[in-house]
Amino acid sequence: MGPVTIFDSTLRDGAQGTGIAFSLEDKLQAVRLLDQVGVQYVEAGNPGSNPKDAEFFHRAGGLALKQAKLVSFGSTRRKNIPVSEDSNLAAILAAGTPVCCVFGKCWKFHVDRVLETTYQENFQMIEESCRFLKSHGREVIFDAEHFFDGWKDDKAFAMEAVRAAVRGGADMVCLCDTNGGAFPHEVEKVVKEVVTKLPVPVAVHFHEDCGMATANSIVAVQAGASQVQGTLLGFGERCGNANLSAIIPDLQLKLGIPCIPQEEMMHLTHRVRELASIANVDLPAWMPYVGENAFAHKAGMHAAGVLKTPRSFEHVDPYLVGNARRFPASEMSGRAVVLEKVKGIFPKLRLDSQEARTLLQELKELESEGYQFEGADASFELLVRKRLKPFPPFFELLYYHIYTDYSDGSDRGASATVKVRVGGEIQLMAAEGNGPVNALDQALRKALEIFYPVLSQVKLSDYKVRVLDSKNATAAGVRVLITSSDGEGTFTTVGVSGDVVAASWKALEDSMEYLLLKAFSKEQGE
Amino acid sequence: MGPVTIFDSTLRDGAQGTGIAFSLEDKLQAVRLLDQVGVQYVEAGNPGSNPKDAEFFHRAGGLALKQAKLVSFGSTRRKNIPVSEDSNLAAILAAGTPVCCVFGKCWKFHVDRVLETTYQENFQMIEESCRFLKSHGREVIFDAEHFFDGWKDDKAFAMEAVRAAVRGGADMVCLCDTNGGAFPHEVEKVVKEVVTKLPVPVAVHFHEDCGMATANSIVAVQAGASQVQGTLLGFGERCGNANLSAIIPDLQLKLGIPCIPQEEMMHLTHRVRELASIANVDLPAWMPYVGENAFAHKAGMHAAGVLKTPRSFEHVDPYLVGNARRFPASEMSGRAVVLEKVKGIFPKLRLDSQEARTLLQELKELESEGYQFEGADASFELLVRKRLKPFPPFFELLYYHIYTDYSDGSDRGASATVKVRVGGEIQLMAAEGNGPVNALDQALRKALEIFYPVLSQVKLSDYKVRVLDSKNATAAGVRVLITSSDGEGTFTTVGVSGDVVAASWKALEDSMEYLLLKAFSKEQGE
Repeated sequence: MGPVTIFDSTLRDGAQGTGIAFSLEDKLQAVRLLDQVGVQYVEAGNPGSNPKDAEFFHRAGGLALKQAKLVSFGSTRRKNIPVSEDSNLAAILAAGTPVCCVFGKCWKFHVDRVLETTYQENFQMIEESCRFLKSHGREVIFDAEHFFDGWKDDKAFAMEAVRAAVRGGADMVCLCDTNGGAFPHEVEKVVKEVVTKLPVPVAVHFHEDCGMATANSIVAVQAGASQVQGTLLGFGERCGNANLSAIIPDLQLKLGIPCIPQEEMMHLTHRVRELASIANVDLPAWMPYVGENAFAHKAGMHAAGVLKTPRSFEHVDPYLVGNARRFPASEMSGRAVVLEKVKGIFPKLRLDSQEARTLLQELKELESEGYQFEGADASFELLVRKRLKPFPPFFELLYYHIYTDYSDGSDRGASATVKVRVGGEIQLMAAEGNGPVNALDQALRKALEIFYPVLSQVKLSDYKVRVLDSKNATAAGVRVLITSSDGEGTFTTVGVSGDVVAASWKALEDSMEYLLLKAFSKEQGE
Repeated sequence: MGPVTIFDSTLRDGAQGTGIAFSLEDKLQAVRLLDQVGVQYVEAGNPGSNPKDAEFFHRAGGLALKQAKLVSFGSTRRKNIPVSEDSNLAAILAAGTPVCCVFGKCWKFHVDRVLETTYQENFQMIEESCRFLKSHGREVIFDAEHFFDGWKDDKAFAMEAVRAAVRGGADMVCLCDTNGGAFPHEVEKVVKEVVTKLPVPVAVHFHEDCGMATANSIVAVQAGASQVQGTLLGFGERCGNANLSAIIPDLQLKLGIPCIPQEEMMHLTHRVRELASIANVDLPAWMPYVGENAFAHKAGMHAAGVLKTPRSFEHVDPYLVGNARRFPASEMSGRAVVLEKVKGIFPKLRLDSQEARTLLQELKELESEGYQFEGADASFELLVRKRLKPFPPFFELLYYHIYTDYSDGSDRGASATVKVRVGGEIQLMAAEGNGPVNALDQALRKALEIFYPVLSQVKLSDYKVRVLDSKNATAAGVRVLITSSDGEGTFTTVGVSGDVVAASWKALEDSMEYLLLKAFSKEQGE
């Protein structure tokens, strides 16, 4: 089988998952990340139904992507109006993406009951919308909504709908199982037949409502589909979409069907977790390939077998997807991956040295406290440098006091006092902010900028809070991630504590230290 | 296709999932629950490798089960000893279960590298172990470990292993994909062939490492398998087992293959959630059929379609599995969905009334401030009641002061002072906590419980923080979600502010108010 392209819809169908919400900055970060993963298409919004997407597409147009093509998504034209007057199609065009994905009805039932128009008009809507977008030079994918249900109901009708798209010039037809009710035996039959009957390549789009989305995608490729649509983490409307983090390695590593650049495969786990952190969702630990437990061998007999020969209880080498073997019962952590990252910072480190072992032990302890260094590379690097090549501290916190206040029906916000020592000198500084963390941040900056003017270049660009053990409610531990930018790039730091202020302090402290370390290393030409 | 039996391994392979641990009481409760679900086999332990299981089986023998047969699991005998001297087989027998499941090797590679014995001895171990258990009057299922890998490597060898079990008298042979590497096209081919070649019924046991466990189970049944092994919640070794909570409705409701009593199907969602609570695991909200979001329609167009006719975006009626349709209110949903929810609270409200229009307008404004009522039904209901049928406030906040403190290298946590008025009376109360929000929560409870002892029943069970506009970093707005339980059920409230403490206050206030409103409505027999 030839190569297959991957179409990620995390920012469109994924955003339709309950509890998922992306800010504009989140979306830009996610597009960059998906481009790094190596997917060929990134569907990033529905500009007709979500006006906020317009600004996003404007800014996304300026991203220098390696290979991913941006896709805007929307409906075919409304019934009984000319394409040129349809606001949805206009919004899709205005998004300025090289690729447009428009959906239309392929199930009689929907035309009768939801769209409430004639079959003839339905086909016209599809054909004219595709032709309109093609005439503006766009690559057009027609999303054949409810194709499998439509086919089971009336095969001739469903085929006529996708033929209308082809007549309109669509470059590709995507067979969608919109309600998630299709099974592999149906998918195999339908895809095989459609592929032979259509003159354009066929894509597929599955939902997880019967637990079949991933398998259906694989079966469809084996039956001749050229593209798989899904979301990298699997989330999306209702039960979610086909999970690309499983489909990509399934196709490429297990079935020998290439779909992303091979050199990106070993970064898959890391990138999936980064995207989860952008989306602020917890990934189930048991996710295939990329989950924390995907290669965790708990049963004693399994662990013993894997230690003799990994193939005995592993269907694939975890290293190939950037994950690691774990032995939770015996607390033997997968050190290879961590050491790989440490070597990125200190290439000459000997992996069997006492230093390396001590560092690993410390990392393990921090992880058991709730630290997670995935997506917090600056804190990781700082920790590694402090242990392997200590440097004198840039500053020392003596105390902070924060006062948060509400009365007379209006928030009065918070004020913080921070006392720091730099070299032999002491600074006491106070600031106000809207909330305790913001006040602390302001006061710390004011104090440190006196000694280190370079800090005025740092801007905090993202702040995330994740509750670790939600069962303890307001007394639960929290992990705070802070992303900072210094004009040249961004970096992320992490802090963990039972107190959101203390956790934020740790992440703030790391962000200041990391920037200072970078600035001073540069000065010394290191 | 005839009926299929369901074999649940939550208490054996499920217990091999990382982070899963059952107490003896948990296991007894789980067995009762699985019996209610209607599965035919409950595999409940590995007495040879886990001595604690002996006592469990002793007590489980006394349970009056409706239909489930208890199964004990273990290895075939060790190499080069007589069956009568094997402690594992003795432990399986001692468990006293009507059914025994023993596993043996079907992959040459494992015999060579893990078992390290001759092929002949391997076949003997299988045959003699089955015969031994049969001679004690037990129903015997032979678990053909690594059958699919073994078959791909050397089909004749794999077949000889299962034939040895049949010669030994095994009642059923279970084809296991122990490493989780099999794909549907392989499963179809292998199962079809094995079914025609063996004189006993065939079961299947899949793992989720490639994301195929559920689909493989369905394909296997279609190819002739008579039993599906899995775990009700899907968890198990590494990525978990075939997820029975999807497979059971897939087979029975979608493919017309009966497997549990039809009258139990509508309790499925409830029982799955009860088992999750016994196992103390969070179920992903997007689980097929039984997840909280399995029938949640977030996209406006989907919600509007479902309101016209549910079949438009639902592959099955949620009522059939005891789940419910949801319309999480969000920026993507239109007014139809919101009004549907309002009508759930005030059934007589006219949707075109001035009141309804004002309420909608207010909701829209709150959403643009960052409120999201999806998953915060209690705050939504409170808001609707306050607007449409106002009630006197239960309490009034006069002020809170919070002091957060760090010095001398150790967190000292936070202390809060809260002053509230209830009727004509004023209470001033103080409390400490590990963090500002926890301190505030403690102080508020202490103050209000004096007036409303019923509040001592409320426990906060979850606390979530989401940063809204991460561009503003530590000055960004935050949305706080608090889930509370009052012994009868749980409810979630939301608060939004630029200050995490103020946002938490709003969610806390709503949770107290909601419970009081519920308690007083009940008293008045409303």
